[in-house]
Amino acid sequence: MDNTKLQTLKGFRDFLPQKMVVRNEAIKRLKSVFEKYGFEELQTPSLEYQEVLLGKYGEEAEKLMYLFEDPGGRKVGLRYDLTVPTARVISNNPDFPKPFKRYQIQPAWRAENTQKGRYREFYQCDIDTFGSASPLADGEILAVISNALEVLEITNYKIRINSRNVLFASMEKAGIAKEKWLTTIQSIDKLDKKSGDEVENELRDKGLTKTQINDAFNAIKLAKPDKFLEDTIQYANKMGAKAIVFDSILSRGLDYYTGPIFETVVDTPKMGSVTGGGRYDALLKTLGGPDIPAVGTTIGLDRICDVVEELNLWPNITKSSTKVLVTIFSNDLLDKSMETAELLRESGINTDLYPDSSVKLDKQLKYADKKDIPFVVVIGSDEERENLVTLKNLKTKEQTKVKLDRITELIK
Amino acid sequence: MDNTKLQTLKGFRDFLPQKMVVRNEAIKRLKSVFEKYGFEELQTPSLEYQEVLLGKYGEEAEKLMYLFEDPGGRKVGLRYDLTVPTARVISNNPDFPKPFKRYQIQPAWRAENTQKGRYREFYQCDIDTFGSASPLADGEILAVISNALEVLEITNYKIRINSRNVLFASMEKAGIAKEKWLTTIQSIDKLDKKSGDEVENELRDKGLTKTQINDAFNAIKLAKPDKFLEDTIQYANKMGAKAIVFDSILSRGLDYYTGPIFETVVDTPKMGSVTGGGRYDALLKTLGGPDIPAVGTTIGLDRICDVVEELNLWPNITKSSTKVLVTIFSNDLLDKSMETAELLRESGINTDLYPDSSVKLDKQLKYADKKDIPFVVVIGSDEERENLVTLKNLKTKEQTKVKLDRITELIK
Repeated sequence: MDNTKLQTLKGFRDFLPQKMVVRNEAIKRLKSVFEKYGFEELQTPSLEYQEVLLGKYGEEAEKLMYLFEDPGGRKVGLRYDLTVPTARVISNNPDFPKPFKRYQIQPAWRAENTQKGRYREFYQCDIDTFGSASPLADGEILAVISNALEVLEITNYKIRINSRNVLFASMEKAGIAKEKWLTTIQSIDKLDKKSGDEVENELRDKGLTKTQINDAFNAIKLAKPDKFLEDTIQYANKMGAKAIVFDSILSRGLDYYTGPIFETVVDTPKMGSVTGGGRYDALLKTLGGPDIPAVGTTIGLDRICDVVEELNLWPNITKSSTKVLVTIFSNDLLDKSMETAELLRESGINTDLYPDSSVKLDKQLKYADKKDIPFVVVIGSDEERENLVTLKNLKTKEQTKVKLDRITELIK
Repeated sequence: MDNTKLQTLKGFRDFLPQKMVVRNEAIKRLKSVFEKYGFEELQTPSLEYQEVLLGKYGEEAEKLMYLFEDPGGRKVGLRYDLTVPTARVISNNPDFPKPFKRYQIQPAWRAENTQKGRYREFYQCDIDTFGSASPLADGEILAVISNALEVLEITNYKIRINSRNVLFASMEKAGIAKEKWLTTIQSIDKLDKKSGDEVENELRDKGLTKTQINDAFNAIKLAKPDKFLEDTIQYANKMGAKAIVFDSILSRGLDYYTGPIFETVVDTPKMGSVTGGGRYDALLKTLGGPDIPAVGTTIGLDRICDVVEELNLWPNITKSSTKVLVTIFSNDLLDKSMETAELLRESGINTDLYPDSSVKLDKQLKYADKKDIPFVVVIGSDEERENLVTLKNLKTKEQTKVKLDRITELIK
């Protein structure tokens, strides 16, 4: 067999069935939370006109884009994120009721250097409220994040929150020149990765004096939430959010966030930052869309799925969506196996009937084992005569002969 | 506002929230049936190397492919169907337990001429069993089709079934030269669209004599299922399939199907053919994959969703995943509204809290109406004083003042 021609494209990956069970479960749980809070699903096409995509993300990003001509000569490209397509949708549907609370779980494509855990096709999972400038919308996003993590059974998390306005007020207080606010904050934000001396040197290189640096450090350290941020946190807590921590050093995406900024870090199990978001009231207009305020977050679906799997966070979730394999002892006993499979299916149990009556039982059992199907049913001639079935638990290796009507409860 | 730059790509479409509710419901129902029969989900990347895609579907198909160079200069293309990527997966994972029963619901891309109901990005929904040559596998696919249609509440369907072997045996019986079997069958298959005379003329043009044409018509008309097809139908019926009809004229995909062929037609509501499939034991090897038998079907997900919506087949499914909007009467009464929303969410009701306390009630009600949210909760100062809430049914226009703990049951 010559397989040389059938290679998976570098930087891409298949989701084999064992991967899909966890992904489907994570997506199901996330959707249930988003919809519980009144967010509705949107899906957009994979391809967009290049003029929709270009000039939005910067030159470096454009180098990573999959841009090409379609068979009709149109200049098109694969979606780079979910925000630009949503801006297009809102712009094309001016009658859409607003605020527009939508979630979107779809792949995006970026030709990044390939490395472990980073793929060129990856799922984005975004939840945003478009058209509300109220801190109630920000608080709700935080409540959704917190609730989502609880539902994913990720417990040891902190939602760090800060605000561009609070950071800029600190810069003003420290007497930093306005054009240096952003770059100063970006250096100070590195304090969790670099030492105080390193950050100080970086700031000196950027032209700040020793006094300015001290004043900036102090101002940021002593900063307090402003009214909008206070309201945001209060509303989030009222709506059930947990573990929100004001962190006056946090700074992210300050070139497009205009108000609160937030991210979620998980320490045990170690999975780094799993969400990131904030308020971006000016972005939609910049992207060519309407001039409406927006707030939202991304949830790192791929990272969450990888960690859930690696650390076996959901021990009760089997690797197979199939609960039981009904084997076929011989062609003569096929009818009995078919009836048993039907009975199990009617009771809501996902049941695989081995789809070949000419294969030896031994091989059928190996198939169940390899596929991680937890239970196997065998109906040989003894069982048929006694009107019983043998139920094997492949994990515990236990097996019992029981009446047909008892196996559904045993499996459940 | 200048929207000229934000156009949806021609031939593509967004799935706005009102579309997603039906799609999600259809996919949920289909998956539950596939998994009930022991099929497991597979997902493959959107992009494949061109050498995986080319030379597989014929020249005409290749004109419709989205082929291009990625930013690293690799020759790649968007998935044209789900069979070739699956052949690649099976080929790359020789240790995979077989039979491999998988389903796959993902988009494919074809640059077809745009017309109503035909899009360049469309969802394929395939269910196949790879690695079993037994009629049990064919019967199971038919049982899945039938069960899926029942679960989709599409009742007036027929599963037409025939077999390439039966058709070819008829040709032999009629004394047609072997090299004319395929073309003769293809003409006779048109009898549901063309008159007998037209088909006869077509066959004369193909070089058949009057006697041969009569013999061919008769042989096909009088054909009976062979043993394999008989077993297939018997097994399908035992596994709960309904409305399987042997149709000795049915012919489809005879260039790749090697055994049974089948399709589902739905007359009321008129939706044409919604599934198509058969046994294709030689195809995987032809595609560069391993030499293993296969049988399966495609389900026309997009068509099913469109018809469900157009004909309102699921009248109890609301256009919004949100069940109730909790309005905010004024900023003073915000707390009460937040508490109410939390209570509803905790009872498992998808609840939208209007995310802005500065907007007038009237506008909030219009928002619910436009979004097709069925219920609205209002808590004004009267309600607060009396410890009641007002529940409006936007469809019936009824409204009642009730105790907070009663609204969950009223909404459910």
